[in-house]
Amino acid sequence: MRKPTREGVLAAAASIAELLPPTPLLPIEIDGVRCHVKAESLQPIGAFKIRGGWWRLSNLDEAEKKRGVVAVSSGNHAQGVAWAARRLGIAATIVMPRNAPQVKLEATRALGAEIVLYDRPGQDRDEVAAGIVAETGATLVHAFADAWVIEGQGSAGVEIAAQLGRAPSRLVACCGGGGLSAGLALACPDSAIHVVEPQGWDMVGRALEAGEVVRVGANPPATICDALQPDATGPIVLSVLHGRAEPGVTVTDEEVRAAQRFAFARLNLVVEPGGAAALAAALAGKVPVDEDTVIMVTGGNTDAASFAETLRG
Amino acid sequence: MRKPTREGVLAAAASIAELLPPTPLLPIEIDGVRCHVKAESLQPIGAFKIRGGWWRLSNLDEAEKKRGVVAVSSGNHAQGVAWAARRLGIAATIVMPRNAPQVKLEATRALGAEIVLYDRPGQDRDEVAAGIVAETGATLVHAFADAWVIEGQGSAGVEIAAQLGRAPSRLVACCGGGGLSAGLALACPDSAIHVVEPQGWDMVGRALEAGEVVRVGANPPATICDALQPDATGPIVLSVLHGRAEPGVTVTDEEVRAAQRFAFARLNLVVEPGGAAALAAALAGKVPVDEDTVIMVTGGNTDAASFAETLRG
Repeated sequence: MRKPTREGVLAAAASIAELLPPTPLLPIEIDGVRCHVKAESLQPIGAFKIRGGWWRLSNLDEAEKKRGVVAVSSGNHAQGVAWAARRLGIAATIVMPRNAPQVKLEATRALGAEIVLYDRPGQDRDEVAAGIVAETGATLVHAFADAWVIEGQGSAGVEIAAQLGRAPSRLVACCGGGGLSAGLALACPDSAIHVVEPQGWDMVGRALEAGEVVRVGANPPATICDALQPDATGPIVLSVLHGRAEPGVTVTDEEVRAAQRFAFARLNLVVEPGGAAALAAALAGKVPVDEDTVIMVTGGNTDAASFAETLRG
Repeated sequence: MRKPTREGVLAAAASIAELLPPTPLLPIEIDGVRCHVKAESLQPIGAFKIRGGWWRLSNLDEAEKKRGVVAVSSGNHAQGVAWAARRLGIAATIVMPRNAPQVKLEATRALGAEIVLYDRPGQDRDEVAAGIVAETGATLVHAFADAWVIEGQGSAGVEIAAQLGRAPSRLVACCGGGGLSAGLALACPDSAIHVVEPQGWDMVGRALEAGEVVRVGANPPATICDALQPDATGPIVLSVLHGRAEPGVTVTDEEVRAAQRFAFARLNLVVEPGGAAALAAALAGKVPVDEDTVIMVTGGNTDAASFAETLRG
């Protein structure tokens, strides 16, 4: 299996720079310390996943492109793959949980992808996807355990260093499977990398500690971070992050909601729960912050009713 | 009285480019037509007014700087002036309506400005400001009837042309006193300029038609656009826009709320009512839209309770 490389990240960044303007790096102040937010929630699909989707799909060969792609996603990777597929004229089938946010289901459908629903929890989504692959010969585009996807996500780190005029001291990333964190680690080899996961869903933090992939238990707790619920990270992610990332950090739903309210009030940004995890950790004092710290705000795809409820506090 | 010029706008843009990164130009689709939103709601003070505030204050001479500045504002110009004053070490007094949004009062105070409250409607805010000027010798920084302020706001147009790679075909601007619209007209001499005002507060649209300043009547209707309630435009604004801008357009509160919901759902942006007026006009089909059209989203400073209510629809 191909390994992600720094050269790959730089190539992905060059390719993406031709398609998408850099998302803004916004100044914020946390407890009197100025630092920065990278607003990936302002990507055309409302999340950083457009990067990995584009870089993976644009690197398929012609025969692969003809057979199409399959992805498994609760919504943001789905939109990233669907966006790239539409742009490249590739057929995309996305396996999504029936209980994914309605806005994410609709947006993915609007991008022209075919959607296959599964029950979460209950059905094994990877089995559903494998069935489609066996039937059609389509390429599975994994949300994080894929060299191109990791490199694509890492392009955000290249943008950040250019915007900041230097390497960030630390990057604080919302973490599902760890693709973004691994990409950032490759993009900014001298920056500390902090992975932030929802309480009870710290599959990457626990894997970093154990030195091997750890699977989520039988009855994981509920979390509002619908985008950060992988069953486990993958060896390819761990091969980049183990011994490289700082110890993992977890945040509670209440800390995440506080971060969403902070982003509303101070940044005029709509941030979805999973996209606010890194900011939540910084606001809760769970990661150090200095003037060269960049906090990733990774997505903003949330529905009006739940956002209104979060604002009510 | 000094007149605003295109050279002044270009100089303002160069000065502001050293301080503030360009706000993003975001792609959107309206009724199948792709166009652009200029997200000035992402400025550090959450509104474009930082531009005019900076350009006016940085052009004061040393004696003027020592005597301080006074501004009259419901909130965004207040923050623009306060931000620039803090940065330049100038004392700022802001005359604000007691019923201004609490978030704007707090943000202005947090920037270090002294706030003097007046009753709206009832007290004449210009009289309150004139009293402070007479007492302290401070310079009045008008929210729109000022050459430097107009030039500063126009810097947004210079940014837009650079981001688009060409002059926009049309600029659609939320309009209070008309400072932004006048600045954009100078910045982009070949672009159509559309001014959008709240129903019943179309002081600029009516002045454009009459060819002279028109004052608001005795009992103007209520509007949710707290940032777009000037008593009248000024001759300096009209001297730029008369014969240059398209006929004015008005929007209802319900159209504005629909635009706020659109910006939430499609752009992940928090937009205040007054900042959504131009988008409201475009969505309602009240201005033409093509692929080189840029819609100004001018501010995002709104409180959680009223935004949550707007989201509930």
